[in-house]
Amino acid sequence: MTLWDKGTEVDSLALSFSAGNEHLLDERLIPFDCSASVAHARMLGKIGMLEESEVRELERGLGEIVRLHGQGSFRILPEQEDCHTAIEEWLVKEVGEAGKKIHLGRSRNDQVLTALRLYEKDALRKTAALLEGYRHALAERASSLEYVLMPGYTHLRPAMPTTAGTWLGAFADMAGDDQDMIGSVIGMIDRSPLGTGAGYGTPLRGADREMTAEELGFASTQQNPIHTHNCRGKEEGIILSVLSSVSLSLNRLASDLLLFSMPELGFVSLADSLCTGSSIMPHKKNPDLLELVRARYHVMLSLELRARSLVGNLVTGYQRDLGLTKEPVFVGFDTLTGSIDVMARVVKTMSIDEDACMRAMRGELYATHEVYRLAEQGMPFRDAYRRVGRRYVSGSP
Amino acid sequence: MTLWDKGTEVDSLALSFSAGNEHLLDERLIPFDCSASVAHARMLGKIGMLEESEVRELERGLGEIVRLHGQGSFRILPEQEDCHTAIEEWLVKEVGEAGKKIHLGRSRNDQVLTALRLYEKDALRKTAALLEGYRHALAERASSLEYVLMPGYTHLRPAMPTTAGTWLGAFADMAGDDQDMIGSVIGMIDRSPLGTGAGYGTPLRGADREMTAEELGFASTQQNPIHTHNCRGKEEGIILSVLSSVSLSLNRLASDLLLFSMPELGFVSLADSLCTGSSIMPHKKNPDLLELVRARYHVMLSLELRARSLVGNLVTGYQRDLGLTKEPVFVGFDTLTGSIDVMARVVKTMSIDEDACMRAMRGELYATHEVYRLAEQGMPFRDAYRRVGRRYVSGSP
Amino acid sequence: MTLWDKGTEVDSLALSFSAGNEHLLDERLIPFDCSASVAHARMLGKIGMLEESEVRELERGLGEIVRLHGQGSFRILPEQEDCHTAIEEWLVKEVGEAGKKIHLGRSRNDQVLTALRLYEKDALRKTAALLEGYRHALAERASSLEYVLMPGYTHLRPAMPTTAGTWLGAFADMAGDDQDMIGSVIGMIDRSPLGTGAGYGTPLRGADREMTAEELGFASTQQNPIHTHNCRGKEEGIILSVLSSVSLSLNRLASDLLLFSMPELGFVSLADSLCTGSSIMPHKKNPDLLELVRARYHVMLSLELRARSLVGNLVTGYQRDLGLTKEPVFVGFDTLTGSIDVMARVVKTMSIDEDACMRAMRGELYATHEVYRLAEQGMPFRDAYRRVGRRYVSGSP
Amino acid sequence: MTLWDKGTEVDSLALSFSAGNEHLLDERLIPFDCSASVAHARMLGKIGMLEESEVRELERGLGEIVRLHGQGSFRILPEQEDCHTAIEEWLVKEVGEAGKKIHLGRSRNDQVLTALRLYEKDALRKTAALLEGYRHALAERASSLEYVLMPGYTHLRPAMPTTAGTWLGAFADMAGDDQDMIGSVIGMIDRSPLGTGAGYGTPLRGADREMTAEELGFASTQQNPIHTHNCRGKEEGIILSVLSSVSLSLNRLASDLLLFSMPELGFVSLADSLCTGSSIMPHKKNPDLLELVRARYHVMLSLELRARSLVGNLVTGYQRDLGLTKEPVFVGFDTLTGSIDVMARVVKTMSIDEDACMRAMRGELYATHEVYRLAEQGMPFRDAYRRVGRRYVSGSP
Repeated sequence: MTLWDKGTEVDSLALSFSAGNEHLLDERLIPFDCSASVAHARMLGKIGMLEESEVRELERGLGEIVRLHGQGSFRILPEQEDCHTAIEEWLVKEVGEAGKKIHLGRSRNDQVLTALRLYEKDALRKTAALLEGYRHALAERASSLEYVLMPGYTHLRPAMPTTAGTWLGAFADMAGDDQDMIGSVIGMIDRSPLGTGAGYGTPLRGADREMTAEELGFASTQQNPIHTHNCRGKEEGIILSVLSSVSLSLNRLASDLLLFSMPELGFVSLADSLCTGSSIMPHKKNPDLLELVRARYHVMLSLELRARSLVGNLVTGYQRDLGLTKEPVFVGFDTLTGSIDVMARVVKTMSIDEDACMRAMRGELYATHEVYRLAEQGMPFRDAYRRVGRRYVSGSP
Repeated sequence: MTLWDKGTEVDSLALSFSAGNEHLLDERLIPFDCSASVAHARMLGKIGMLEESEVRELERGLGEIVRLHGQGSFRILPEQEDCHTAIEEWLVKEVGEAGKKIHLGRSRNDQVLTALRLYEKDALRKTAALLEGYRHALAERASSLEYVLMPGYTHLRPAMPTTAGTWLGAFADMAGDDQDMIGSVIGMIDRSPLGTGAGYGTPLRGADREMTAEELGFASTQQNPIHTHNCRGKEEGIILSVLSSVSLSLNRLASDLLLFSMPELGFVSLADSLCTGSSIMPHKKNPDLLELVRARYHVMLSLELRARSLVGNLVTGYQRDLGLTKEPVFVGFDTLTGSIDVMARVVKTMSIDEDACMRAMRGELYATHEVYRLAEQGMPFRDAYRRVGRRYVSGSP
Repeated sequence: MTLWDKGTEVDSLALSFSAGNEHLLDERLIPFDCSASVAHARMLGKIGMLEESEVRELERGLGEIVRLHGQGSFRILPEQEDCHTAIEEWLVKEVGEAGKKIHLGRSRNDQVLTALRLYEKDALRKTAALLEGYRHALAERASSLEYVLMPGYTHLRPAMPTTAGTWLGAFADMAGDDQDMIGSVIGMIDRSPLGTGAGYGTPLRGADREMTAEELGFASTQQNPIHTHNCRGKEEGIILSVLSSVSLSLNRLASDLLLFSMPELGFVSLADSLCTGSSIMPHKKNPDLLELVRARYHVMLSLELRARSLVGNLVTGYQRDLGLTKEPVFVGFDTLTGSIDVMARVVKTMSIDEDACMRAMRGELYATHEVYRLAEQGMPFRDAYRRVGRRYVSGSP
Repeated sequence: MTLWDKGTEVDSLALSFSAGNEHLLDERLIPFDCSASVAHARMLGKIGMLEESEVRELERGLGEIVRLHGQGSFRILPEQEDCHTAIEEWLVKEVGEAGKKIHLGRSRNDQVLTALRLYEKDALRKTAALLEGYRHALAERASSLEYVLMPGYTHLRPAMPTTAGTWLGAFADMAGDDQDMIGSVIGMIDRSPLGTGAGYGTPLRGADREMTAEELGFASTQQNPIHTHNCRGKEEGIILSVLSSVSLSLNRLASDLLLFSMPELGFVSLADSLCTGSSIMPHKKNPDLLELVRARYHVMLSLELRARSLVGNLVTGYQRDLGLTKEPVFVGFDTLTGSIDVMARVVKTMSIDEDACMRAMRGELYATHEVYRLAEQGMPFRDAYRRVGRRYVSGSP
């Protein structure tokens, strides 16, 4: 049964098309929705819309749902559409009258927004923590390879000398940037939407939105209810844009590793245990993992685009289109965190072939140094550049 | 066990990251891969690489797999990675030695390409058939509303008179265009890749690729093996671009219906059984289905982008990135066909309020007709336009 | 002055924001709009809305505009917004009364659609012709390199033997596919929109739309006026999706060439005259052109996305958003044709280092051949695969 | 002549394809590049690589270039490729030997990165200032409309009461969020890349990068040179993602205004001076500006996608692809700031029809309030909801 059931028949195709896979997606919101419902029930108690005993029953009931969910035995049925309905129905059935009262002072719209922001804050923090591990692995390898020379490339051509430490350290620094970006976006969404109803407030007298905001650990309470709901989808687009930026950092390192581990270069080799094989060519050791990490950047990009494109041209006020911004966020976090995990493991287990790196340090890498030697002796830079350059034109490096 | 198992240990994280959800996705390829394997086994029989009896055993085995799959009891295990492995392992176990021989003359790369093209042709044909039903529903409504006047809008402002029949007929015509586009793309992919191995052919002497192409109903055999494999991903991008074009046609009609069914216009009303409600506002009848159809265009667009973006900058030769073009195609077909289905039902059950349409036929809609009356009397068009136009500037329509 | 001027003041910011760079973009539509206007004038003459002499004057005037445009001396002023206005104003000024009559039976909406389709057909044909040159260059190199062995890669690792001829031939075949796709899309847009007004027809009695369609060389006349205008933007998205597919073919070859011309592989070297240098490193010869061709695929993709995303969620009837689909088409054709040109030149002038290719033919490339030798001697394929595979596990290739 | 000219011939097609429109794009970087060059020259002076007098001559020369540029008389020639070359060549010609020395300790790669970051910081600040004006206009209208009732919509259906002040205030709040986001991204890019060369440092002894960073007003100096250059393109993607988020805020308000100004609703009317007309229908007043603002969101989205997609799969080290991230940033700022400007003007000049708003306050908008009245009397919320809901099912609102 749906929350909006009023006794009419609804086409089953309509229901199933409308429900989609929401009941599966919503599983991960259950604990967050329960926390929010506890805070909401307490507030209703405080302002006298629930008895003290009802609040306690609801707390117990919601705690039980979290416990069942933890065991994998709280299910959302397709016809319930979402976790909010499943939770209210369970409460009505198990707790009784109080379950029918908990929806006072909220709508599913602000309820899902609350659960989503709680989930997103949590997932962003976990992503930042994973990045910290990855960054640390990079920084460690970088510091032990500080003096290992290797060619720096531009245009896929050997350009100037660098070191393996500088190269890997660059990705450690980039991970640091990414952690900062995640911090910014957490700051942006850290405000409570609970109590803004379907975007036009609720007629509940005395509702104490600051109280629920504080209980839930939000830094502030978002005031204008229309603004609160116009953030839906926009925020998801912004979160996904940050995740796709992080994913790009991994894509770039994976691209380097794929090239540098070609036998023709041989600077890096991946741990055998992280390689796969071919069904026809028995000699192959394939870097599937790196290719997947690389490819997942494009997956992230498409998820970001989905959220961003979905919300364009919509007028104010909830429309179902907005609901479809939920899935890309969930898939996005899963896609990215899996990749960070794998890359941390790749970084820790790969080996750098210092001899191969050294063999690649051909003389032309030092051409710029020659120019500078001449410049230090007083020849203007551009003249020195042209003199050294002519040597390479005649083809005699 | 993987097809490329050679007795070394592979990290379990690596395997599970690499496998992803491929074992679930691949379920739908099973019947197509079995057909292709039957054709391939017959060819191996014909050129003497399999005994007559082995061919018959394999045919029987593959038939059994299709039967089990139909019952939902053929499973691909995560560690098997894909349907090709699951099928070969089943054959080795149930059929014996012949199962170990069937991979001669092919690789997983051309095998999946074959199964995919067979699937795609089938799914494209089914989509075209659904479109035919939708087009027919529109054409029928259009013909019965041929003389029902309604305002034609430009810039969301009443512009000139039109009829409800012309309006709905426009979407019938667009569905016709979409069917044609699907026909074109079927023509493009209708060529057999089987036997091109991993993009560099196979050393099998006497392989008869034309025979398998014909058995499988392909219009031709694709010759250059590198070209065959460079099509992977590119074709998926093209298919998805067609699906997103079709999806746009639905998005546009849904957008019209959402506007025209606003109470302020009231030209259209949706069947109650296709509407949903609100958890807080008891009076609401919401057009969720239309909003979802509208939103799904953006989902399609993001799937198309994913396939297109994934394959950029890749050098020749299979890389795992390409495997990730499978999912958007599968999800794309499901997303689109569900929408066509719903829109056909919406079109059949909605009602057109002819009175509301007529009430909206305000005089200014005929301003252009007045210009033409003057023009027919000999006044140059632009002068007539300016004369009639002045009336509206002074604000007296 | 605008065509819709009725004597009121319009904000100059509004006009300039609205006009944008349309007057520059529209330059390329002038000849097509003039052709369409000639056909339209003849039709108005035939049905008696223009005198014979007026038709001749208009023909002369429009011919003169084309001539001036050819010399670069017909300008569209920003305040005229588009070529249609500039042309009508010129006619009114130079030809007189007849110029004020030519807009009978059409609107700017069908006028621009007509000019666009004529332009698009022309630009598609020119693109196909350029592709033919590129395809031919590839096929020639391929045929002369038919027997030059080189490694075939998968996963950026040497996989199996192939030949330089097969490799380059693959891109010739892909260019052939691309030509076919262009043919399909020409077929799709080859129908006349002229006379459908702003999407609701015009009140012109006796308008002979078949006559203008035939004069302009369209294969047919598009009937439903709403459908005709709902195609705007959708068609542009489809054209751009084809152009971005073609662009992908170039991206893939450029990616191969960038890798294969690394000194560490050395299979290919680009003509010096097609390389650029560095401002700091005097020894560099950089393959900027190939990088730009590669990058332009992403530019094309973004142009396609722009057209596709712009038209979503729009209700029926012209809205200015649709006008913004013009620019990506123009920029798209320029971007792509420039790339085809460059790639044809790269292909013709690059050299293949046959010795380097041969040196790269290491033994492991033949591992699959060994498996097949065992299989031909009767060992089941999978057993042979595992036996050969073990050799590579122990690390002794 | 190019900076990397060493006396060989370069194909003219190659040069023009490679140069593209860079010489036009780069115009806007001239003042920023000159500032950076002044700081760089001072630093070279301080460490003794330039004479005191040379520094002064360069300062004077660079000041002169800025002056000429301000007058529109400093041109970058196509064959010069970019502003860096044009400036160095001008200095060599007008200032002499010192001009040939200024490139010591930098490469074009860090030079363009420096100019870009200075430009981007400046453009972001200007965008935030424009947003402040727009936000202020909204806040003022909102405060004067605080008590004007109007229907709040969900699913494009009247839902609950709200006020015009809340509605417009929501967009003021959103503009505030957007200003904050811009602040974050300024913080992210505010670090000096100058002196990191082409990503591998320069051999200049004693280079004082902190000095130039401070002179240029950067908050810090970016240390790892590879990291510095790996930020190219990634930063542009992030900036564009912020700009497209801001653009979405405008798109949403434009969408509201387009709907609310339909004659069938009539809540808002746009100033006549901001409307345009039709070439065929003399009565039309069209909201082209709003449609363009709406459409430009999709333009922004495509620019963001371009920058993001371009940089995927690239290995470390400058490649020309990265250069193509410049244009979308420039076009992006122009596109967005134009839209903010227009929307501020629209907001200031539009009128709200308070009577039309009030007439639209139909009884069903208060259905939720009835539910709450019952709930306050003790009926559980869900029971009250169902009782009130039944009234609307029977169709008697």
